[in-house]
Amino acid sequence: MKRKGILIIVSGFSGAGKGTLVKKLIEEYDGYALSISATTRQPRPGEEDGREYFFLQKEQFERKIAENGLIEYACYCDNYYGTPREYVEQQLDDGKDVILEIEIQGALKVKKQYVDALLLFVMPPSAEELRRRLVGRGTETEEVIDKRMRRAAQEAQGIEEYDYIVVNDDLAECVRQLHEIVTAAHNTPDRNKEFIENIRTELEGEK
Amino acid sequence: MKRKGILIIVSGFSGAGKGTLVKKLIEEYDGYALSISATTRQPRPGEEDGREYFFLQKEQFERKIAENGLIEYACYCDNYYGTPREYVEQQLDDGKDVILEIEIQGALKVKKQYVDALLLFVMPPSAEELRRRLVGRGTETEEVIDKRMRRAAQEAQGIEEYDYIVVNDDLAECVRQLHEIVTAAHNTPDRNKEFIENIRTELEGEK
Repeated sequence: MKRKGILIIVSGFSGAGKGTLVKKLIEEYDGYALSISATTRQPRPGEEDGREYFFLQKEQFERKIAENGLIEYACYCDNYYGTPREYVEQQLDDGKDVILEIEIQGALKVKKQYVDALLLFVMPPSAEELRRRLVGRGTETEEVIDKRMRRAAQEAQGIEEYDYIVVNDDLAECVRQLHEIVTAAHNTPDRNKEFIENIRTELEGEK
Repeated sequence: MKRKGILIIVSGFSGAGKGTLVKKLIEEYDGYALSISATTRQPRPGEEDGREYFFLQKEQFERKIAENGLIEYACYCDNYYGTPREYVEQQLDDGKDVILEIEIQGALKVKKQYVDALLLFVMPPSAEELRRRLVGRGTETEEVIDKRMRRAAQEAQGIEEYDYIVVNDDLAECVRQLHEIVTAAHNTPDRNKEFIENIRTELEGEK
């Protein structure tokens, strides 16, 4: 039985540690692939095309939209961001569990097209800890931190849309939990239709 | 945050190895409790009251029904079988994940009262393997084995009612999978309402 990949959407508050978590998950376990977004914004120093993002011209991006080549896209600050469909579907067909790190609006758009997608929400153990982590980065002004905390309060409204929450207290433990959730998800009847049908046919033949 | 237990229903074909699986799960991991059924049938040699079953008189059983003291019950071959409510609820409140080994009709009755219950269906890797195991027991006549295989074909119709299937190929691996599924289930938003509400309140306070 060939196992089909699961489309995994990882969302969560900025500062909850999504990026590190996903990176560790892919490093430590086989069978995952990370979806890379496309964007029309300029590469920042150190960013590479095809690694952080696929950097596209506005016309290229709009052609992709027209061709239905993006699973979801949005426009922030005059730049497009989106998820190229082809890579995701290739990896899924190949049996890989594909991770998309996107926000709730995008997550819900994806869920409509891929009803089987698994929606995970990464949370800090407390709001206090979230602030501590944002402050600890040392790169943000107090104003930016306050803005992120307000944003987190908004994002927290959508948690019930997700299938699972993961509390990022201890990183290693959290990575293990994420992997467990994905492993468990492979065991739903929905994701094993072929196996169930086969055994039914066999049992009917036994009569 | 005090974690509430999950009511876990384990069903599956006779011969799929449910009993051994559940026994191993409880032996190897903490936090589980096994629900013991009540019955009006006579104890068989070696069976002990409160271990295999609670053995009740018919009047006692019917009093329990009248008092709503059973989560579900059924009558087979003139004997009652049922799940006493009190023990299950005590263990759940205590944070234990309580395992009920029952058939699909009972499982669906329980699910109506405990919408949060987790329904697991244990399957053999194939129908051929199921027959091999039943034959291998060496205790059943061919007629009984055929009857069980037909019964399995019927039971297989209800698999989609379950949340997860578990394929019992390798016992140790299957026990690990069961435990992973239960662990993952503790991470749904539904089962973490208090935690989510707390962090929302905290985030609101941050504004």
